[in-house]
Amino acid sequence: MQNGNGKIINIGLLGCGNVGTEFVRLLSQNRDMIYDKTGMNVDIKKILVKDKKKKRGVPESLVTNNPDEILDDKKIDLVVELIGGTDKAKEYVLRAIDAGKHIVTANKALIAAHGKTLISMANNHKRRISFEASVCAGIPIIRSLRESLASDRIDFICGIVNGTCNYILTQMGSYNLTFQEALKKAIENGFCEPDPALDITGKDSAQKLAILATLAFGSSIETSSIYTEGIDHMQQDDIRITSRLGFKIKHVAIAKRHQNGIELRVNPVLLDKKNILSNVDNEFNAVIVSGAATGDLIFTGKGAGPMPTSAAVLSDVIEIAKETGEGKRSNFNGVKWSNPDLIKIDDTENSFYLRIPIYDRPGAIGSITTILGENGVSISRADAELIPDKVNYGNVCLLTHRCVESRIKSAIKEIFNLQFLRGIPTLIRIGYH
Amino acid sequence: MQNGNGKIINIGLLGCGNVGTEFVRLLSQNRDMIYDKTGMNVDIKKILVKDKKKKRGVPESLVTNNPDEILDDKKIDLVVELIGGTDKAKEYVLRAIDAGKHIVTANKALIAAHGKTLISMANNHKRRISFEASVCAGIPIIRSLRESLASDRIDFICGIVNGTCNYILTQMGSYNLTFQEALKKAIENGFCEPDPALDITGKDSAQKLAILATLAFGSSIETSSIYTEGIDHMQQDDIRITSRLGFKIKHVAIAKRHQNGIELRVNPVLLDKKNILSNVDNEFNAVIVSGAATGDLIFTGKGAGPMPTSAAVLSDVIEIAKETGEGKRSNFNGVKWSNPDLIKIDDTENSFYLRIPIYDRPGAIGSITTILGENGVSISRADAELIPDKVNYGNVCLLTHRCVESRIKSAIKEIFNLQFLRGIPTLIRIGYH
Repeated sequence: MQNGNGKIINIGLLGCGNVGTEFVRLLSQNRDMIYDKTGMNVDIKKILVKDKKKKRGVPESLVTNNPDEILDDKKIDLVVELIGGTDKAKEYVLRAIDAGKHIVTANKALIAAHGKTLISMANNHKRRISFEASVCAGIPIIRSLRESLASDRIDFICGIVNGTCNYILTQMGSYNLTFQEALKKAIENGFCEPDPALDITGKDSAQKLAILATLAFGSSIETSSIYTEGIDHMQQDDIRITSRLGFKIKHVAIAKRHQNGIELRVNPVLLDKKNILSNVDNEFNAVIVSGAATGDLIFTGKGAGPMPTSAAVLSDVIEIAKETGEGKRSNFNGVKWSNPDLIKIDDTENSFYLRIPIYDRPGAIGSITTILGENGVSISRADAELIPDKVNYGNVCLLTHRCVESRIKSAIKEIFNLQFLRGIPTLIRIGYH
Repeated sequence: MQNGNGKIINIGLLGCGNVGTEFVRLLSQNRDMIYDKTGMNVDIKKILVKDKKKKRGVPESLVTNNPDEILDDKKIDLVVELIGGTDKAKEYVLRAIDAGKHIVTANKALIAAHGKTLISMANNHKRRISFEASVCAGIPIIRSLRESLASDRIDFICGIVNGTCNYILTQMGSYNLTFQEALKKAIENGFCEPDPALDITGKDSAQKLAILATLAFGSSIETSSIYTEGIDHMQQDDIRITSRLGFKIKHVAIAKRHQNGIELRVNPVLLDKKNILSNVDNEFNAVIVSGAATGDLIFTGKGAGPMPTSAAVLSDVIEIAKETGEGKRSNFNGVKWSNPDLIKIDDTENSFYLRIPIYDRPGAIGSITTILGENGVSISRADAELIPDKVNYGNVCLLTHRCVESRIKSAIKEIFNLQFLRGIPTLIRIGYH
């Protein structure tokens, strides 16, 4: 089994679901290639599972349901955490670092919630904590932020980082599906977690944005401090109308450096159909990163699935194996913490798409546009429609020039008092710059 | 000047043109950030130039025209080579490695021609040789192949890797320019080297492909063994006709793993207008890399220019500085050499676009399609046109089903004998799979 005179790096694997099983397979398949690249024999010594009796296609002799057999084993150099969640995972990872083990994890919830603690602790112990797979799976966005763009000042990140949302929006646009119909299709095709709430409310994207912003700006970002809008309120009317106006709706995570702080938001936006992100459809992810010197870089690929995820986990393992070959390094995880101010969503500036569902009355458009004008919101384009087959049912759709968000929100508050209002207005930001 | 208790890494810079000057500026601007990330003070100790008197905006005390002051200085840990070319650059880099210095270079010609020698020698001396900037400047394609995709088997690479060619083709398509007009515009806008021949003949792309294929397949690829077609023969007629048929013409570099070998080619191809590479226009670059587990990853950004290039050079420097912080590593450059067979272009299989310029004669289309049929080439679409304002002047344009290249080439040989032929036929491969 041993290649040449290579040293051994022993892995303890925590969790063996779809990603874990694929990781074991990929590692075993590529063991010789890894030896060639690192001079190390990378072996799995133990696998922690809940139920030892379940068949998984991994060697039964390695399986245990006792975490101590991994965390207390001094011969295990590296723990790969694929349990998920923040309870047990956090406990085990803390214990593992404390015992001097390197960590590789695909757990975005864990890094988003406790990244600063874990990275600081790993730095103190001169151990690596790597999490390439936690954001967009096989797309090497974490490593690019940590290494390739280490020489540059990051000013802007905008990404389609949730494949479920992107799939649902694409399907709504391509086949005139309602949100519920598209969600059902996403579930049937395996593009959803068992509980899709984390995806469709935008929380999953916010966790990923917290991680990216932490690396880009050296700041410890709480997911709860990120303005987060999901797609669960998305109406087919808006998909249809914005398409007619030349846009696609995409759900994106945005981090932007301003002179007075950092703007962070997760939300649907209208993008021109020719925008490069407009052509990233279905389960695909894409992230734009803009560095002061490098300009815009765009990374595109599948952001989920056991194969790309386990390939990303294994790339982290290989990196640590390479390093382990020749002594340890300090300052491994290279994040310098800072505390920039976050800009409140009401203080951000955008162009907007505003759809106001109305009963068709004389003077309706006039009343709405007057309110907007009084609030200092200037209109760049207006489009009014009656809905086919319904008498008196209509939509007033407006595109605005750039304005501070608080202004349009006070206008909408006034619009809520109009008698001919037929439903809740839709407000979607336009573009990402 | 010194941060904290950090150690120093001294750089000797060879060459100080646009990229070198920008590198000096970027390093000086980001010195503190680099210290935070690496624990090292990274300093430039000496800069080799041809003409000491020329003003460059770099400290005059550092400038020398004697290479020995860098190559023989034991205090210089790392040589950044920005001279270009393969003569002096090769000599200096060999001497530097031999003297135990790490190398960072942006020189694709050097790596394409002598990569194997230099990497092997650096491995023997346990030194790093890094060349992120040599392919697509700030787009982290080299690091992704070396590290992120180190866990995967690369099966396919296809990239728009030459911004000059992409700019010219985009301009020909958008403004109906001839090749000469678009080339002139590229020169005026600074998108060309002083001598554009290397770009427009495809040789620059072939050098980049040699480097990418070397990293992807672990093989030492000679640039001269890569089938290379440029865009210098590109006709406006073909841009116009293929656009009508739903395609864009893009100049791409392709590496493909087959069971019996590696297919390597640099050539213009027809891509469906909806293809993701079709929307990468003007001076932008994009590279698709497909891993067995990871699937398709696409990297997009500006592939040239002093700022992105120097940012990429600096990212390599930072990586070496990090490593230097804590002892040396062996097997640094992680390439395992192999010698796969290369597949000859005549044995590759594609669909084709074939335009045959003719004088309009009865039976012309029949004669052409008969010849193709006899050679086993099957037609999927035919489009014949008379050129406006010209009597008897026409084009027969054919799209074929997939066939082995040698077949369509023998058909074209026969077509050359037809009396109504008005000019040289154009043959362009369709797609990249």
